[in-house]
Amino acid sequence: MSDLSLRRTRRLARGAVPPAFGVAPITPGMVGGRYMPLTQAEMERIHDLVLRLLEDLGLSQVTPSLERRAVEAGCRVDETGRLRFPRALVEDVIARTRRKFTLHGLDPVHDLEIGGRRVHTGTGGAAPTIMDFDSGRYRESTVADLYDIARLVDRLDNIHWYHRSVVARDTDTILDLDINTTYACLSGTTKSIAVSYTDGNSVRAVQPMLDMVAGGEGKFRERPFCTAVCCHVVPPMRFATESCDALEAAVLAGMPILLVSAGQAGATAPAALAGAVAQACAEVLAGLILCNLVDPHCRGIFAAWPFVSDLRTGAMSGGSGEQALLSAACAQMAGFYDLPNSVPAGMTDSKLPDVQAGGEKGYTISLAAHAGATMIHECAGMQGSLMGTTLESYVLDNDLLGAILRTVKGVEVSEDTLNFDVVRDVVMGAGHYLGHPQTFARMKTDYVYPEIADRRSISEWQEAGARDARAVARDRVRRILSEHYPGHIAESVDARLRETYNIVLPTARMRAGNGVW
Amino acid sequence: MSDLSLRRTRRLARGAVPPAFGVAPITPGMVGGRYMPLTQAEMERIHDLVLRLLEDLGLSQVTPSLERRAVEAGCRVDETGRLRFPRALVEDVIARTRRKFTLHGLDPVHDLEIGGRRVHTGTGGAAPTIMDFDSGRYRESTVADLYDIARLVDRLDNIHWYHRSVVARDTDTILDLDINTTYACLSGTTKSIAVSYTDGNSVRAVQPMLDMVAGGEGKFRERPFCTAVCCHVVPPMRFATESCDALEAAVLAGMPILLVSAGQAGATAPAALAGAVAQACAEVLAGLILCNLVDPHCRGIFAAWPFVSDLRTGAMSGGSGEQALLSAACAQMAGFYDLPNSVPAGMTDSKLPDVQAGGEKGYTISLAAHAGATMIHECAGMQGSLMGTTLESYVLDNDLLGAILRTVKGVEVSEDTLNFDVVRDVVMGAGHYLGHPQTFARMKTDYVYPEIADRRSISEWQEAGARDARAVARDRVRRILSEHYPGHIAESVDARLRETYNIVLPTARMRAGNGVW
Repeated sequence: MSDLSLRRTRRLARGAVPPAFGVAPITPGMVGGRYMPLTQAEMERIHDLVLRLLEDLGLSQVTPSLERRAVEAGCRVDETGRLRFPRALVEDVIARTRRKFTLHGLDPVHDLEIGGRRVHTGTGGAAPTIMDFDSGRYRESTVADLYDIARLVDRLDNIHWYHRSVVARDTDTILDLDINTTYACLSGTTKSIAVSYTDGNSVRAVQPMLDMVAGGEGKFRERPFCTAVCCHVVPPMRFATESCDALEAAVLAGMPILLVSAGQAGATAPAALAGAVAQACAEVLAGLILCNLVDPHCRGIFAAWPFVSDLRTGAMSGGSGEQALLSAACAQMAGFYDLPNSVPAGMTDSKLPDVQAGGEKGYTISLAAHAGATMIHECAGMQGSLMGTTLESYVLDNDLLGAILRTVKGVEVSEDTLNFDVVRDVVMGAGHYLGHPQTFARMKTDYVYPEIADRRSISEWQEAGARDARAVARDRVRRILSEHYPGHIAESVDARLRETYNIVLPTARMRAGNGVW
Repeated sequence: MSDLSLRRTRRLARGAVPPAFGVAPITPGMVGGRYMPLTQAEMERIHDLVLRLLEDLGLSQVTPSLERRAVEAGCRVDETGRLRFPRALVEDVIARTRRKFTLHGLDPVHDLEIGGRRVHTGTGGAAPTIMDFDSGRYRESTVADLYDIARLVDRLDNIHWYHRSVVARDTDTILDLDINTTYACLSGTTKSIAVSYTDGNSVRAVQPMLDMVAGGEGKFRERPFCTAVCCHVVPPMRFATESCDALEAAVLAGMPILLVSAGQAGATAPAALAGAVAQACAEVLAGLILCNLVDPHCRGIFAAWPFVSDLRTGAMSGGSGEQALLSAACAQMAGFYDLPNSVPAGMTDSKLPDVQAGGEKGYTISLAAHAGATMIHECAGMQGSLMGTTLESYVLDNDLLGAILRTVKGVEVSEDTLNFDVVRDVVMGAGHYLGHPQTFARMKTDYVYPEIADRRSISEWQEAGARDARAVARDRVRRILSEHYPGHIAESVDARLRETYNIVLPTARMRAGNGVW
C-alpha cells in the first residue's frame, strides 16, 4: 500500500472523530430483539402461568382506594383478602395500555421514544453508599453525590437518562429525602430523571417543584420529565401498600411510572428462572392494571426485575450469568406483551471498576440490549450488586455502552456493503482498502470510537505510563466535575425553590470554581 | 422466614459447590444460536457475494500441487493466474463436507463434539509478548511460557482446549519453533491442542512426536488431538503459498485444520462489515474446498475471522463493538452453511486485566456464543488485540466464560420450572422460597458459582483487604503453577522425544519443586 494513501486515510479518520451530529454511528433507540432466549411457545407457557397467578392466587394488601377501583373493573377479593385479577381483565389491559410514549428530558434534545424494541440505556438503583473518590473507602452517599452524578451523566452520551442511583443519607426525613433527590437530579442534568417516591405525600409535595422548573403551574404535565420509580409489590405476590399510594398519586400527576417487581430468585421468587420470570411478570401486570384503572392514558413501564440470590449465602448476585438470563427473558416477555419496559443489567457484584466489573457488565448489558429491552436500568455506575456506586464507573460504563449500542445497530446489508466491484477493484488494483472511498465513508458512519478504552500498541501504552482504564476514567471524572455546572435552572427559579423547600444542596456547590472539584 | 431454614439452605448450598460430576450446571457443547444478527434473507445475500467472489474473482498464488487437484475437480485458472471456483463446486463441497467431528483431547475426557451450534470456548492467538508476572512489563514470550499456560489451561474447566496463544521467541529456527511449541503444549495439558505450522516440513516433522505421545506409530491418526492452525490466505483473495503446503500436509496427516482468514476491515477487507464477512467466508471456503480435494473426510473448521481496524490509526481493535458484530455474523454464516466453525472473541484492546478488558471480553464472547459459534478462539488470556498475554487473564477469563456459558444453557421452561403449586404454597405458607425443595434442587443444577468473582458485601470485602479480581487471580495462578505438573507423558517417552528432537524446555521445568513458581 502507498504510504500516502495510508496517511491520508488516517488523517481523514482522525478528522472524522467525533462525528458531526446526524451521522453518529449510534443513536438512542436503535432496535434490538435479535437475541431470543425464549421461544414463542415458551413465552406462551410463561404467560399461562402469569394469568393463573393473577386469577387463582392474586395479590394481598392493596390499598382501599385501589381495591375499590379494581373491584369496579371486575376484580374480586377472595376469602383471604387477596385481590384476584380475572384473565379477561388482564388481557384487556395488556391490549389497550400505551404501547409507546415519549420519555421527556428537561431539554427536548434528550426526549426518548420508549416502545417497540427500541433500546435505551441509563442509570438506576438505590445504592446507600459511594466509594469516596479520594480515599477509595465506601461511605454513605449524599445529596451532593446525587448532584455530581447528575452532572457526569449530563455529559455522557450513552447514558440516556438519569434515574437516581444513590440514596441521599444526609436528609432528616423521608419527605426531605424525596424533595432533595428530585432537586439534585433536576439541577444536575437536562436529561429525563426519575425518583423513587416513598408515598403519595412525597409525590404531591414535589409537583410544584416540577412545575416551577417546567415554567409554571401545569407545565410539567405537558412534558413530564420526571418518572416515579414505584416498587409497588413486595414479592411474592403482595402489594407494597405505601408504594401503591405513591403509584396512584404519580399517575394522577401525569408522571411516567416505572412499575418494578424486584424479587430474588430462591428467596422471594422461585429459584427456577422461568418461575421467577412468571412471578415478576404477574406482579408487574398487577401494578400496570392498577395504573390503567387510575388513568387509561398512563405512561406505565413494565419493569419485571427478578434478581438472583447466591444460594450459598442468600446474597444478591447482580453480575451472574443467571441474572443476565433473567433480565433478557423479562425483556423478551415485555416484547411479547409489546409494552414499554425496563430490565436491570450491569449490576456487577464487584465493589470497584475492575476486570470482574467489566466482564459482568459486558455480558449482562449486551444480552439485555439484544433481547430488545426498551430501557436498561442500572447499566451505569453500579457496584456491589447495587449496594454502592463509584464515580469513575459512569464514565467507564458510558464507553462500554457505546460499544454495546454499536452491536445493537447491527450489520448493514445493502448494495453498498456487499459490493462486488469494491472487492474486485481493490484486489486487481491497490491490494488494500485503505484508500478506497467506501472506507472513508464507512469510518464516519459505521465505527464507534471510544473515549476511555485504550487501543494503543503495547509499547506506546507502556511508554505512556501503563495506566489502566480506571485511572484514565478518573481524570475524566475530575475534568467533568470541575468544569460542568449546568445552568438550565434560572437563578430566580432556584431562589424560589429554596424558599419553598428545605434544600440541602448548597448553592456554592452548583457553581464553577467552588473548589470542591 | 425462619433462621433455621435459612441456615439449612445456606449449608446445603455450600455443600453443593463444586457440584458432583454429571449435575454440573454447564458443560462443553451446549447449544447456542438464539442471537441472530443477520436475517435469513441477509445471509442469502451475503452468500450470493461469496459465490460471486469465488467464481468471478477467485484467489491468486495457490501451490502447484493444490492447483492441479483443483483444476481436476473443475476449477479454472484465469488469464491472470487466479484460481476460480465454479458455483456448483462450492455448493457441492459445502453440502458434502463433514458437519461434525470429535476434536480429541490427549485424554478422552476432554474430547469435544464439534458441529451443530454446540458452543465451545478456548484459547488461540499468536501473541509475541507476555506481561512478566513479577515485573508487570511486557517481554518476549518463550517456550516455558507456552508450557506454563498449558498447565493453567489444564486446570481451568471452561477453557475447552489449548491452542497455542503465544509465539516462543527463544527458538533458533522455524522448525525448532514448531517442534517446541508442539512439545510444550502436549506436555502441559491433556486437552486438545493446536499449533500453527509454518509449512509442510514442520507438519511432517512433528508426526513422530504426535505418534510417540499417542502410543506408537499410526496412533495419532486414530485420535488426532493436535489441530493445525492454517492461515491459508493473505487477504484480500490471495492464497498464502507456504501455509497451503502446510494445509495439504496436515490434511494428509489426519489433523483437524483450522482454516483461518484474518483480514482487517478497512485495510485488507472491506470497511463495510457485511463485505468483510463475505470476503472472509469466500476465502475460508476456498481453503475448505482445497482440504476436501485432498481428503473428503478431512476435519475442516470454518474460521472466518475478519478483524477490525481503528481507522484513525490503522491499528487492529479486537475489543470493539464492530468486532463483536463481525464475529457473531461469521458464526451465523457458518451456521447457515452448517459447518464446524470458529470465530475469535475476547480479543481486548487493553494491555492488562482491567475493567476495559473485562467489558470487551464480556460482550464480544457472549455475542459470539449466542450466535452459535462451535468454537470460540482467543477467548482466554489475550491482551492488546492479540499482541500480548497475561497469565492471570486465563484464570479470570475462565470465570467469565463460566457465566457466559451459563447464559448459553438458557432458561429451562418445564412443568417444574413453571409450577403454580410452588408459588401458591410459598405465598400461602412460609412466604419465602428459601426452604422449598425446588430451591435445594435448582441451586445445584441451575446456578454457576464463580471461583474468582467476588460476591461479598461491601463491608466484608473492605475488611478483607479490598482486593480487585486481578489480585485474587494472581494467587490462583501461583497456586496452579506451583502445584500442577501433569505427568501424562511417561518419562521414557519424554526421554525418546528429547533424543529425537531439539527440545528447549528443561526437564526441571516440568517437575514440582523446581523453584520457578
